[in-house]
Amino acid sequence: MRLHTSPRAPNPRRVDMFLAEKGIDGIERQLYDLNRGDLRSAEFRQLNPMGRVPVLELEDGRRLAESRAICSYLEHLHPEPNLMGRGAEERAFIESVDRQVELFLLGSIANAVRHTHPGLAPLEQPQFPDFGTAQGHKMLEYAAVFDRLLASRPWFAGDRFTIADITAFCGIEFGKLIKFRPGDAGLAHLADWRERVAARPSAKLA
Amino acid sequence: MRLHTSPRAPNPRRVDMFLAEKGIDGIERQLYDLNRGDLRSAEFRQLNPMGRVPVLELEDGRRLAESRAICSYLEHLHPEPNLMGRGAEERAFIESVDRQVELFLLGSIANAVRHTHPGLAPLEQPQFPDFGTAQGHKMLEYAAVFDRLLASRPWFAGDRFTIADITAFCGIEFGKLIKFRPGDAGLAHLADWRERVAARPSAKLA
Repeated sequence: MRLHTSPRAPNPRRVDMFLAEKGIDGIERQLYDLNRGDLRSAEFRQLNPMGRVPVLELEDGRRLAESRAICSYLEHLHPEPNLMGRGAEERAFIESVDRQVELFLLGSIANAVRHTHPGLAPLEQPQFPDFGTAQGHKMLEYAAVFDRLLASRPWFAGDRFTIADITAFCGIEFGKLIKFRPGDAGLAHLADWRERVAARPSAKLA
Repeated sequence: MRLHTSPRAPNPRRVDMFLAEKGIDGIERQLYDLNRGDLRSAEFRQLNPMGRVPVLELEDGRRLAESRAICSYLEHLHPEPNLMGRGAEERAFIESVDRQVELFLLGSIANAVRHTHPGLAPLEQPQFPDFGTAQGHKMLEYAAVFDRLLASRPWFAGDRFTIADITAFCGIEFGKLIKFRPGDAGLAHLADWRERVAARPSAKLA
């Protein structure tokens, strides 16, 4: 297998953390420079017509795009430690939380960064700074909702670390580009949770 | 079970179509008026802190939010006809396509509608019309990518109808609010596919 990816970008990082939590190594990595426009090449569009990393290329040549779908595939190959649910029912409940984290928290952070940060201008054209600023405000509202949820459970999806914590952590770390830190925002439960995730070996950047 | 939902909105419609394809009926429905602000009530926030429909309330009182997670749960209870993949590997590949459809096609359509249509002003505050217009242009680019993919396969995820077709159809129908019709945009494969989906009984609005 070969993982087509880019270091540090939030969605590739989700797969990197997932691999580290599983203890999977030995997957060949092909790195792309997003700012150089590597993903817009005709060659890369053959791998993923959407022009996004990560993409997992299987031994038989098939390509699997999308961070969460790659994790689903890897969870099947490497079931332990379980990160996405044991059995269909728990899988659905963890998917529910993971989607809420992705669509609301990571989504609003990503919009805020991509539309306001000069460093993202090569990727997000045109940028709409007013929209980005408004998304930053919405992000704080969503972060406050999750902060309240974390008052009564140690991890996003309940009593154990799951893929939803990975999604949330990669989103929040990306939020540093707009100076978002849960503690500074008065979100004590979220800040405590972040410290616990940041202490895990999987949270270290490659 | 009770489904908390709202008729016609694109995400609730995904679950409605999924239920219809499965032939599942008899689920009690509690309807909400989005424009009246029903989802912002403290009572509804108890059901889903994110303030969104659909939410599936189970017999034991647990609540499952998020259209795709609800479908995952229902697929487990009602495996046939299969819409999300037989076995973990096919599930990952269908998830990959379904996510691309949701994040790029439905996502850009939803942004374009929510930020430009006066009827959506009660839900999207503030609206950023320039951002919405730009999202409409991106939507056409993504729709063209999917049009090319549909030149070589009858359905979004391959040779059979799946949840990815439901996601795409609900997105494209929502796009009527910004006058998007695949045929008018010169996307012949996408237009042909849309006709085939529109002819299915599940595509009829309740």
